[in-house]
Amino acid sequence: MPRKLVLHPDRLFSPDERQRAVARGLYEAVKDLPIISPHGHTDPAWFSGNAAFENAADLLIKPDHYVFRMLYSQGIALEDLGLSRADGAPVEQDGRRIWQLFASHYHLFRGTPSRMWLDTVFVQVFGFDEVLCTENADHYYDTINAALATDAFRPRALFERFNIELLSTTESPLSDLAHHRAIADSGWRGRVISAYRPDPVIDPEFEGFAGALREFGELTGEDTSTFSGYLQAHRKRRAFFKSTGVTSTDHGHPTARTADLPRAEVEALFALARSGRASPEQAELFRAQMLTEMARMSIDDGLVMQLHPGSFRNHNASVFQRFGRDKGADIPVQTSYVAQLKPLLDKFGTEPGLTLILFTLDETAYSRELAPLAGHYPCLRLGPPWWFHDSPEGMRRFREQVTETAGFYNTVGFNDDTRAFLSIPARHDVARRMDCDWLAQLVCDHRLDQAEAGELAVELSYTLARKAYKL
Amino acid sequence: MPRKLVLHPDRLFSPDERQRAVARGLYEAVKDLPIISPHGHTDPAWFSGNAAFENAADLLIKPDHYVFRMLYSQGIALEDLGLSRADGAPVEQDGRRIWQLFASHYHLFRGTPSRMWLDTVFVQVFGFDEVLCTENADHYYDTINAALATDAFRPRALFERFNIELLSTTESPLSDLAHHRAIADSGWRGRVISAYRPDPVIDPEFEGFAGALREFGELTGEDTSTFSGYLQAHRKRRAFFKSTGVTSTDHGHPTARTADLPRAEVEALFALARSGRASPEQAELFRAQMLTEMARMSIDDGLVMQLHPGSFRNHNASVFQRFGRDKGADIPVQTSYVAQLKPLLDKFGTEPGLTLILFTLDETAYSRELAPLAGHYPCLRLGPPWWFHDSPEGMRRFREQVTETAGFYNTVGFNDDTRAFLSIPARHDVARRMDCDWLAQLVCDHRLDQAEAGELAVELSYTLARKAYKL
Amino acid sequence: MPRKLVLHPDRLFSPDERQRAVARGLYEAVKDLPIISPHGHTDPAWFSGNAAFENAADLLIKPDHYVFRMLYSQGIALEDLGLSRADGAPVEQDGRRIWQLFASHYHLFRGTPSRMWLDTVFVQVFGFDEVLCTENADHYYDTINAALATDAFRPRALFERFNIELLSTTESPLSDLAHHRAIADSGWRGRVISAYRPDPVIDPEFEGFAGALREFGELTGEDTSTFSGYLQAHRKRRAFFKSTGVTSTDHGHPTARTADLPRAEVEALFALARSGRASPEQAELFRAQMLTEMARMSIDDGLVMQLHPGSFRNHNASVFQRFGRDKGADIPVQTSYVAQLKPLLDKFGTEPGLTLILFTLDETAYSRELAPLAGHYPCLRLGPPWWFHDSPEGMRRFREQVTETAGFYNTVGFNDDTRAFLSIPARHDVARRMDCDWLAQLVCDHRLDQAEAGELAVELSYTLARKAYKL
Repeated sequence: MPRKLVLHPDRLFSPDERQRAVARGLYEAVKDLPIISPHGHTDPAWFSGNAAFENAADLLIKPDHYVFRMLYSQGIALEDLGLSRADGAPVEQDGRRIWQLFASHYHLFRGTPSRMWLDTVFVQVFGFDEVLCTENADHYYDTINAALATDAFRPRALFERFNIELLSTTESPLSDLAHHRAIADSGWRGRVISAYRPDPVIDPEFEGFAGALREFGELTGEDTSTFSGYLQAHRKRRAFFKSTGVTSTDHGHPTARTADLPRAEVEALFALARSGRASPEQAELFRAQMLTEMARMSIDDGLVMQLHPGSFRNHNASVFQRFGRDKGADIPVQTSYVAQLKPLLDKFGTEPGLTLILFTLDETAYSRELAPLAGHYPCLRLGPPWWFHDSPEGMRRFREQVTETAGFYNTVGFNDDTRAFLSIPARHDVARRMDCDWLAQLVCDHRLDQAEAGELAVELSYTLARKAYKL
Repeated sequence: MPRKLVLHPDRLFSPDERQRAVARGLYEAVKDLPIISPHGHTDPAWFSGNAAFENAADLLIKPDHYVFRMLYSQGIALEDLGLSRADGAPVEQDGRRIWQLFASHYHLFRGTPSRMWLDTVFVQVFGFDEVLCTENADHYYDTINAALATDAFRPRALFERFNIELLSTTESPLSDLAHHRAIADSGWRGRVISAYRPDPVIDPEFEGFAGALREFGELTGEDTSTFSGYLQAHRKRRAFFKSTGVTSTDHGHPTARTADLPRAEVEALFALARSGRASPEQAELFRAQMLTEMARMSIDDGLVMQLHPGSFRNHNASVFQRFGRDKGADIPVQTSYVAQLKPLLDKFGTEPGLTLILFTLDETAYSRELAPLAGHYPCLRLGPPWWFHDSPEGMRRFREQVTETAGFYNTVGFNDDTRAFLSIPARHDVARRMDCDWLAQLVCDHRLDQAEAGELAVELSYTLARKAYKL
Repeated sequence: MPRKLVLHPDRLFSPDERQRAVARGLYEAVKDLPIISPHGHTDPAWFSGNAAFENAADLLIKPDHYVFRMLYSQGIALEDLGLSRADGAPVEQDGRRIWQLFASHYHLFRGTPSRMWLDTVFVQVFGFDEVLCTENADHYYDTINAALATDAFRPRALFERFNIELLSTTESPLSDLAHHRAIADSGWRGRVISAYRPDPVIDPEFEGFAGALREFGELTGEDTSTFSGYLQAHRKRRAFFKSTGVTSTDHGHPTARTADLPRAEVEALFALARSGRASPEQAELFRAQMLTEMARMSIDDGLVMQLHPGSFRNHNASVFQRFGRDKGADIPVQTSYVAQLKPLLDKFGTEPGLTLILFTLDETAYSRELAPLAGHYPCLRLGPPWWFHDSPEGMRRFREQVTETAGFYNTVGFNDDTRAFLSIPARHDVARRMDCDWLAQLVCDHRLDQAEAGELAVELSYTLARKAYKL
């Protein structure tokens, strides 16, 4: 029998009445602030084309690796969830059956942030009032699909309804940003920008690196067989990105390693990388050097750097072979920052023009490395809890371990970092609630007064993101 | 002056009235569920022979390394606690004096789980109502000994009184499981099974490895001087264990490293290991390979694998020399899983028949590695907080860091993992209380409804252990 | 408009009324106990000369790296805060302007312990009732300076007013301890002792190591060009320190590594170190060996050892070059203890005379390594949360992760470890509050009774420090 689905107005606040009352007051003042989403992975085509979303399975299950990784972990085949096979082998095509499978396993998400995000979408976007289960799966599926077919649920309408002030996607330097330019030219008031994510032309281990380098050269008219031409190509594409409103770059390296090598050595590394003969250590060193090169360019052109290190990509060999990348099989690894970042920081750490936002998948670095680094270096800021850690508990751990040493002003507000467009308001709402509850705790143990906490709630929900990303 | 000893009915629940009320309700419904103890180290001879326990010191102090390590840390000689010297040197023989020494240092345990377990035993098993101290040490000692001499305190009677549905011990492949077979044949309804713990014949660095290999061959009629005979010997002993009701294996390796080497290389490693000339790295590699071999056999025979890595054994050279192993001198070390498990997972990670339960002594792996791994791979499950971490705080850290990414259904309920038989109900009670309080918190911040929390409380207390261990 | 500044009597206690009431009761009984400050970095000259402090900027900003690192992290030049340049370049000389700059950025400290310490000083030492801000900066500055000019604010008067029973500073073996001896001879009843901190003559990588060795020889009349003369010089200086009342040594090594090498090898290492030709690994090995040598001497002379490992010193190359060491640019790194300490522990770990107090900047070691080690080895004790972690959250993490395995009696009370003299009472007050709140939690979840918690509150606030440091 289906259970009632209600979003309690005090969800995620402390059970303590005193703290809850303070949190509620802080939250009331920020809950309707516009959403700044300065880092994420939605598809810009949605907002340029503004076509209706297909159906519930295509929108809510197939693109959401949080959802299908959990189902897979309990023995459900990815084929049965409709994920495309690399070899074109048949997979489930019937969205309804996929949805039913999901619904009948919805209990697996108890206690996870996915459950919270999904329930919020179900209530706030689609108006459901029963918890998803086997019995109401069809009703859910039909209701969602019917809604998606209406104009009110097209991408731009949702963008506006979600009160998004700015949304950033992430693109390769090879992208022509056609969708972003089309959006800008369309007269629609929604602001959708990109971020310069050069991994495909910086990481010698990226699939198709050599081809990408050639395309990079063709696109820019630079000779990317030489290191200076290659750097010049970066400069040109960064300038192009910037001309479309882009304010940041993003770097998804395996580690936080940086380097500052003599030019001749870098050129030799680049030649090796181009030839496909770089060893793993040489590839790593090239990526390390390129972070420093990117910092140098950021000082020139003002783009804010984001560093997202520490993910072991495509850990499941069988899944990678059958389904390709980004299939929920990326696993965090130990990541250290102190020695790794030193070459870049020695070179550019005190340059006034530089902002480098650090993220981590290794929470042990919060109090030990990241807060001490960001609490000292003028160029460093700390990104919010990322990926596996953007849960209520992850957000609390972040504030508890970072605030003491880095304060609030060396952090940059929230990133949703998601492909799941419909979950964006839910994710920001969780962040605002958790920040308000944390501030309420500081008020209740008399470390902040109410007015200060109120100012900080606005900073954390809105202002810091605008400042850090130069929006 | 002795203090009153009372077990408060709400112990370990949040001080918040609202959360406490929810926790109390959840706990009421699970507190009397039978105990599943799928992993531990009690002595099966207790239950086959059913002889009365000797005295309070022999039962509660000498076998409990949690107890004597704390006393030792504050300067009490292990000899004075009656622990046997390897060289036969005289140690304290008088149980009463040992008990008095313990009683006069009982304050050292304040705030530790040992204190909770012991107090629970004192109240619930023996009916005491004063906190143990110097003044009442003799009264305690005499009362316990008098009780132990009665039939109601023999092992089987306690097993029944404790409402244990199943108890698993852990034995070497060389064991004849005589006690387990005797129990099964005795007509007694208590279910006591073993687990296949092959470390003595898998770890080239285990004391007496060469002799154990010979015995392994004699026992199975296999030629354990060849790798194929050695593997066949494992298969036979696993089949024998299984025939007595065993459902799991257990592996206590220094690290989580696995390997999938070419057969010729494995045979060469095995020859080195047999000869006693394997280097530490070669011994490690052999253990790594054998985890993969054990996984292969588990797919065939269905035994659930348990991996307990990360303990630096016998750290105190002087204690090891004078008293031997398992004397409270094992210390956790950093443990990583992501790269280490990949060879095994690449080989067998998507096999439907495999269950591999991962434990850790390095809590930093919870949110960074273990929850992401178990939240993806179908064969992986997370064991409960282990050893040093089966405290209330350790249990809370586990749920807070694991649930967000792995949910509840990739965990396996509680293990007491103890030699201290009398503490088993107390340990499970702590786990049930902490889980109910954690669920109550999720109810109070409106992430779960009461009914869901009630279902989960039963799963965590009872059902998940049965399922995961195929009981 | 300035905000009211009030120190709430219940600050830092749980918002839960029940827990708060217990915490308040415990705190009432310990808040006025004398302060034992067994480890810190105040200047003994203050107490021998007893000259008035100069002004607010010199006293509260320039010596406090917590304060200026936060300001620097948000783009304020260290020159503008009046920190001296190594090259003698001009820096801000006007204390009032420095103070104004600080005041106008006081919001940066929201949520940090610095904010709490400073506010406590502002209220309790100077009687302010408004939060520092741009508008009242001059009033603050003038009021503080006027107070400092009076006798009641001279160092000895403040020492007495702060109810300090003992204060330890930290000096090089080359120090003549003139100030300490002058204090002892002065008839003043304040007890100010030193600690033997031999890094400058033990660490081959310390600036001026060779010169320090020569001076060490001259001072002791020993031939410090030989290892035996060098050891003898240590023995003499330790004896000298001890003769002035010193009870401890302190070791600030990059890692916790120890060694127990053959004598010939040590002598060769020493010769290399003296010559300035030791590689980083050789320097590390020499430091490692010297920890074991210091332990040997501690067994002889009874001095308590303190080990403070894990800081990457002077990480910011530009700041180090322009301003020198201790400028807020030291960053913690991963630190491991288990294998590292084994050589020393194998040699001396069971010697009854030895006390080795371990500190960490890597909180992951608390539950994994430090509590298990200290909960076993008789010579080991755990120092309190250190440096970046002496925040309310850091203190809670310490108790939550350490108590379960090491209990309370393997910890040593609080260290303020500060150069900021005025903040000492505030820092001890934070520690007492957090410990009382932690004990209150154990009372409220019925793990301790009130009387036990009361005993423990006194131990943690006062007695354990006296015992551990042999005061």
